[in-house]
Amino acid sequence: MAWRFALLIEPAASDESRTDFADTLTPIDPSAPALSIGELSTQRGDGIFESIGVVDAHPQEVQAHLERLAHSAQVCDLPAPNLAQWAQAVSVAAAQCPPGECVIKLILSRGVEHGPAPTAWVTVASAADNTAARENGVRVVVLDRGFDSGAPARAPWLLLGAKTLSYAPNMAALREARRRGADDAVFVSSDGVLLEGPTSSLVLRQGDRFVTPAPGAGILHGTTQLSLFAHLEDRGFETAYETLPTAALLEADAAWLVSSVRLAAGITAVDDAPLPYDPAFTRELNDYLLSPRS
Amino acid sequence: MAWRFALLIEPAASDESRTDFADTLTPIDPSAPALSIGELSTQRGDGIFESIGVVDAHPQEVQAHLERLAHSAQVCDLPAPNLAQWAQAVSVAAAQCPPGECVIKLILSRGVEHGPAPTAWVTVASAADNTAARENGVRVVVLDRGFDSGAPARAPWLLLGAKTLSYAPNMAALREARRRGADDAVFVSSDGVLLEGPTSSLVLRQGDRFVTPAPGAGILHGTTQLSLFAHLEDRGFETAYETLPTAALLEADAAWLVSSVRLAAGITAVDDAPLPYDPAFTRELNDYLLSPRS
Repeated sequence: MAWRFALLIEPAASDESRTDFADTLTPIDPSAPALSIGELSTQRGDGIFESIGVVDAHPQEVQAHLERLAHSAQVCDLPAPNLAQWAQAVSVAAAQCPPGECVIKLILSRGVEHGPAPTAWVTVASAADNTAARENGVRVVVLDRGFDSGAPARAPWLLLGAKTLSYAPNMAALREARRRGADDAVFVSSDGVLLEGPTSSLVLRQGDRFVTPAPGAGILHGTTQLSLFAHLEDRGFETAYETLPTAALLEADAAWLVSSVRLAAGITAVDDAPLPYDPAFTRELNDYLLSPRS
Repeated sequence: MAWRFALLIEPAASDESRTDFADTLTPIDPSAPALSIGELSTQRGDGIFESIGVVDAHPQEVQAHLERLAHSAQVCDLPAPNLAQWAQAVSVAAAQCPPGECVIKLILSRGVEHGPAPTAWVTVASAADNTAARENGVRVVVLDRGFDSGAPARAPWLLLGAKTLSYAPNMAALREARRRGADDAVFVSSDGVLLEGPTSSLVLRQGDRFVTPAPGAGILHGTTQLSLFAHLEDRGFETAYETLPTAALLEADAAWLVSSVRLAAGITAVDDAPLPYDPAFTRELNDYLLSPRS
């Protein structure tokens, strides 16, 4: 992944109603030092983020990502982001993307320790080549997320519905998956409820019905899953949010991990047990996901 | 808190046996931008840290902190730190500390995304004034940590025994405590086992016996708790590591949250129920903790 562009944002209040925030967006050299050692993002993983897929300079599903950023800010007691300002930052960043696939990351940190305000920045990088995962699928292992399905409602300070920068366990889960010879992981709650991948949402096919774990059980509401469900409904399929036991994955007619940049990766095996995999249908899903979406 | 000094470390291999690492330690301006926007510490909270208390330029319990850094690195699949190199970095940093109390932070990040190596740095800041917590104690609330006491052994990818940079839930727990009119929190497992504070260890007094939750239940082994237990044993008290139910806190003859910089803060109330508090004994503990320790 090559860094292409970055800009620092001087966060505006959410009720600031102007329409041009250009003077608050400062392009910086993405390869030069830019962040203070006092940054709470580095010290505590204390902040939130979004990763937006970009195809041929078109940023995908911007509004859904911005709304989730605002949701994460609320869960984390961060000042509400000014979404018009962030939308402008995304536009400026997308204009730096060459043909092909890129990823724009939005980061809102609590700021420098004891500093007056949050810090915020946006980066642009070329996307990794995800052809293999999209075409050949991924082998997954099922990993215990440690908490029971009641924990998110009982203990909101765990921030389980927010996309925080505290992703070290998610990264460790991916390493554990590779250690076991797999490509990715599916988290389940300690009481056996399917959750999500460490960096993706889970979608199961049951006949002509597509289901995904219900948000609220401590998972993110996936922007790609939302978009995919709208597409599937347009095609006449039924979609649903459900509380799904681990066995539902093993019994699915097909399953995918979907995310903003890798898009739809079919699950070909769960803990070494093969799962039905439909490469043609998966290709259709990715064709849709690669088309301009907003 | 004022930043006083910082240095970047070019990490040496753990088996590198030289005795002088001066050329790998680069002092930097702590107020200038120093970190890349590609830092995985900022993007994923993917790294580990230690906070070392410094009293009159003497860094406390350096070896214990370095050993815990090495343990955290192992849990997180980071290259083993060269402890001689880190010890030298701590010495260089401590030499920058004026009389009074400071804090040295050690940070080992997985590095820049897709970069070749971890990044590492050390910061020095003046310590906050912790007089009020040491003398008047702290009011705590009991907060559910979400996982059961079996999760750490069952799911090592949760990194529950490592001091990672993914501390957003710990910070959220402190905000929740303040929202409830308290100063700090005590985490319990979902099955009711006492764990630790978000940034401290828990020590209970039961008669002339001092107990702390057993490491292994997903808590850090506190360096200050270790040092305090050695001191208490020297004074003839019994000490023990135990699996303690939540009720043990409410029934304790006294309790403290102990940490490297704030030191011993007596718990004066648990969820608004008063707890016996011994200011004279607490003062003796802090006198010990403020004396030079290694």
